[in-house]
Amino acid sequence: MDQDRQKKNAARAALNEVQDGMVVGLGTGSTAAYFIQALSNRVHEENWRIETVATSKESAELARSLGLIVKDIDEVSAIDLTVDGADEVDPKLNGIKGGGAALLFEKVVALRSKKNVWLIDESKLSPRLGAFLLPVEVIEFGAQQVYRTFVHMGLHPRFRMQNERDRKKTDSGHNIIDLDISAVADLSQLAEQLKSITGVVEHGLFLGICDKAIIGSDPIKEIERPQRQSADQRPVPTA
Amino acid sequence: MDQDRQKKNAARAALNEVQDGMVVGLGTGSTAAYFIQALSNRVHEENWRIETVATSKESAELARSLGLIVKDIDEVSAIDLTVDGADEVDPKLNGIKGGGAALLFEKVVALRSKKNVWLIDESKLSPRLGAFLLPVEVIEFGAQQVYRTFVHMGLHPRFRMQNERDRKKTDSGHNIIDLDISAVADLSQLAEQLKSITGVVEHGLFLGICDKAIIGSDPIKEIERPQRQSADQRPVPTA
Repeated sequence: MDQDRQKKNAARAALNEVQDGMVVGLGTGSTAAYFIQALSNRVHEENWRIETVATSKESAELARSLGLIVKDIDEVSAIDLTVDGADEVDPKLNGIKGGGAALLFEKVVALRSKKNVWLIDESKLSPRLGAFLLPVEVIEFGAQQVYRTFVHMGLHPRFRMQNERDRKKTDSGHNIIDLDISAVADLSQLAEQLKSITGVVEHGLFLGICDKAIIGSDPIKEIERPQRQSADQRPVPTA
Repeated sequence: MDQDRQKKNAARAALNEVQDGMVVGLGTGSTAAYFIQALSNRVHEENWRIETVATSKESAELARSLGLIVKDIDEVSAIDLTVDGADEVDPKLNGIKGGGAALLFEKVVALRSKKNVWLIDESKLSPRLGAFLLPVEVIEFGAQQVYRTFVHMGLHPRFRMQNERDRKKTDSGHNIIDLDISAVADLSQLAEQLKSITGVVEHGLFLGICDKAIIGSDPIKEIERPQRQSADQRPVPTA
């Protein structure tokens, strides 16, 4: 089954996770867009009262255009469920995100969500993360200095480009540097190390965050994480 | 001697650190402004070839208006010396910076500088950091969530305000949250913990970064750090 059909299948299956009255986090990218469409249909069919929080301007615009209520993350007291795509997922449900350059807001929303569901097609499953480049969001000021640090770390950095001349800008006005992490053994350590660098805002390693992956194959497959990881992955108390 | 006179004294004394041909990092704030003025005078008197890198739009504009050459940090191969102020400095030359909301660029520049000199008046010396509030730069998206994390950590957060209604915006478009760290015992641990939080871009704890403090008393006093701290405070290789 082709990727696009798998994405649509997964998006429809994710509706089983949604209940009337929920605050739902909306991911960014092609798969998330299918979910936003499916959610909008369901909300209108069932006359549900659902509020959403978007992880990008793009998803906020799409959701509003489909009649969904979109709130700022600081306007809701909690997010019940976030449904998003992912670029690469390993069997423990650790993943790489950020292909759509929305990793920062995606991580802020994910860490505030009681449950995180990722929709993927089979091609995104990987025994070991690193087939996909790891996006890192960096401030513009001195970005070249951070780039050099990554060279020194052996991570073969490349600036994400908007076009031939200009670097990509995220919704926060930052740049993205993509890293080759295929040779890195300890991803937790890498995650810590990257975040600690002055100039790095956030990175696309989502470790211990996803609770369930829905793979849009026929039949649908689901992978669940038995239990949440420790609190250090979730620094924001839900109280 | 009043603070203002001490600041001017320190700024003049800092000229001893500058040599013809250097790339000089320019701090931000009232003390840094006195240094920029003194540097400009010296450069014109001696006909020096000096390039500068600024840590804020404010300092870049001042330096340019005084005829100094201001380069972007990514246009210079290295920074020989950075001269900046500080809000609070302990006897080991650890400090709190960010009263002027320029801590992010100040830290980027400081970490790329071969030598960091801080100009202070006697009132900034403190046996133990924490009399001054610690500024933390956070992204706007979900800033309230980070604020709650700080409440939970017992750090009595306050958003820095631009006026009664609007939050302060830094040169990068971020917000500032000021923290009361007077009850925190281990500042290295706090520094790590703060930077690791999703949504935090950087904080104003400058540990192991300053090489010399010049106190503008009469006579001038200088405190030097015997040796640099380990590389983890300086993640950017100077090669």
